Amino acid sequence: MSNQKLLVVGTMAFDEIITPSETSGKVLGGAATYIGLAAAYAQAETGIVSVVGNDFTEEHLQLLRDRNIDLSGVEQVADQPSFYWKGKYHSNMNSRDTLDTQLNVLANFSPKVPTYFKDARVVMLGNLDPNVQQQVLDQLTPNPQRVVLLDTMNFWMDSQLEALLRVIKQVDVITINDEEAIQLSGKNNLVMAAKAIHAMGPSFVIIKKGEHGALLFHSEGPFYAPALPLDQVIDPTGAGDSFAGGLSGYLTKQNAVTAKEIKQGILYGTAAASICVGGMGTKGLEKADGQVFAHQLQKLEQLRTIV
Amino acid sequence: MSNQKLLVVGTMAFDEIITPSETSGKVLGGAATYIGLAAAYAQAETGIVSVVGNDFTEEHLQLLRDRNIDLSGVEQVADQPSFYWKGKYHSNMNSRDTLDTQLNVLANFSPKVPTYFKDARVVMLGNLDPNVQQQVLDQLTPNPQRVVLLDTMNFWMDSQLEALLRVIKQVDVITINDEEAIQLSGKNNLVMAAKAIHAMGPSFVIIKKGEHGALLFHSEGPFYAPALPLDQVIDPTGAGDSFAGGLSGYLTKQNAVTAKEIKQGILYGTAAASICVGGMGTKGLEKADGQVFAHQLQKLEQLRTIV
Repeated sequence: MSNQKLLVVGTMAFDEIITPSETSGKVLGGAATYIGLAAAYAQAETGIVSVVGNDFTEEHLQLLRDRNIDLSGVEQVADQPSFYWKGKYHSNMNSRDTLDTQLNVLANFSPKVPTYFKDARVVMLGNLDPNVQQQVLDQLTPNPQRVVLLDTMNFWMDSQLEALLRVIKQVDVITINDEEAIQLSGKNNLVMAAKAIHAMGPSFVIIKKGEHGALLFHSEGPFYAPALPLDQVIDPTGAGDSFAGGLSGYLTKQNAVTAKEIKQGILYGTAAASICVGGMGTKGLEKADGQVFAHQLQKLEQLRTIV
Repeated sequence: MSNQKLLVVGTMAFDEIITPSETSGKVLGGAATYIGLAAAYAQAETGIVSVVGNDFTEEHLQLLRDRNIDLSGVEQVADQPSFYWKGKYHSNMNSRDTLDTQLNVLANFSPKVPTYFKDARVVMLGNLDPNVQQQVLDQLTPNPQRVVLLDTMNFWMDSQLEALLRVIKQVDVITINDEEAIQLSGKNNLVMAAKAIHAMGPSFVIIKKGEHGALLFHSEGPFYAPALPLDQVIDPTGAGDSFAGGLSGYLTKQNAVTAKEIKQGILYGTAAASICVGGMGTKGLEKADGQVFAHQLQKLEQLRTIV
């Protein structure tokens, strides 16, 4: 049996989130933070590679360590603040405007993968500059059972397409939202888009459709995992990262990764995302323990079941 | 065992449909036409109550009779043309503009339910003036096992809300699209909207989400039936009616109608809708036989299945 290590690269950040009913103030955020918190539901042995600034407190770090997340790959820069993002959601919560982005420590981030995680079974490349994602891949030692997952967004298609396509070629699983799949592929239909992205490298193309769930395309035909209908969405920030975290955490604990495990992992991701959106920032994930997570998984099963 | 008769009320019409790639010319259309064609996959004994004009040919009627659809409740008016609708789809096929509507024979339509269908086990009230839907309900004879389904749209919410609410109170199952559920309920969230509509009368609230599938809300919690991802949508006209037809046709053949049958019926409706959008107007349904329908059902099962 291969090791059960999950290596995550992504931002650790501060966010300020404005929803129609609430303003968060400066709160913990970042793709790697959400991924790590969500992967913890699967009790994966997770290590994060990231960078934080002088405003990141011991309390923030301890929150992650408490969930068995190794932070030896997180560099702390003494003379700069952490990456900062401020955004405002529209009334239907399905779209948002970025009000401010400050790269800060991220501007010169050079990821260093701890030796212990170089042979990680599962590698989750969280949404980040594809050149940084590539630097992480370059530091890995071979593991024949490795599974590499990638999450990305339109910003990198606009600014770093070549580097992004190079990374995409090397990954097994890509998670991407519907609009971005259309943009990346140049197709105007999700089925055609998924086929085109499949041809770019990944065996498994997962299209995230927000409240409508997620679609998996692979060589054996599509699979559709609906999202839980929620009577209240507090804050969608981090939902996609939580999805990636639940999925990659689940895969880390499996002996084999075939379509079956990917599908089950998508349910894990969906459950994590449904928890994430139930609180401001990371609060939803922070509050919900394994029992709550199991309950969400059960509700997802009921949602899909006829009898 | 109760009878297995399905009574359908709705329009029979001529449509002119403009999609980004094709213009249909004047083709067979109308809610009852689509419902009848789709219900035929379940081999339900269907009777339609409707009205047509002097432009409706024997060929059009025979097309329906060939599928075992009883047209004795279809009045033919000698001195007027049939109901006519012309619409143009936008490039993404998810929205459309109505370019022309001519009520013609529909303006003075007074439905007459044939005696044989007055005790029908299942009654499908297709999208139509709720006052006409009510006139059909008023002519029925009691059947303790009766199931009444209603499909409606925003036009009637705007123009005939009181009559619509009265009909809604009397039905067991309502099918309504997501935007219209929001409008009808005054809520801004689908879960809350479904609860509010449930409180208006129907035990089963089915929210149609187009390419994203359909959600069932009832007393035991939600069920989500994804739609088949399609690599090509030729014409979405009639998809909602086909959904209603597949569902009501299936229910007509069941001994009991509980949540289980409704869920299975939603899969029938989803399969019929996926066939409908594969051709201009009714061409998709006309071409696809029972074997094609069974294949669509099988693909829907695979779409929902992990192993």
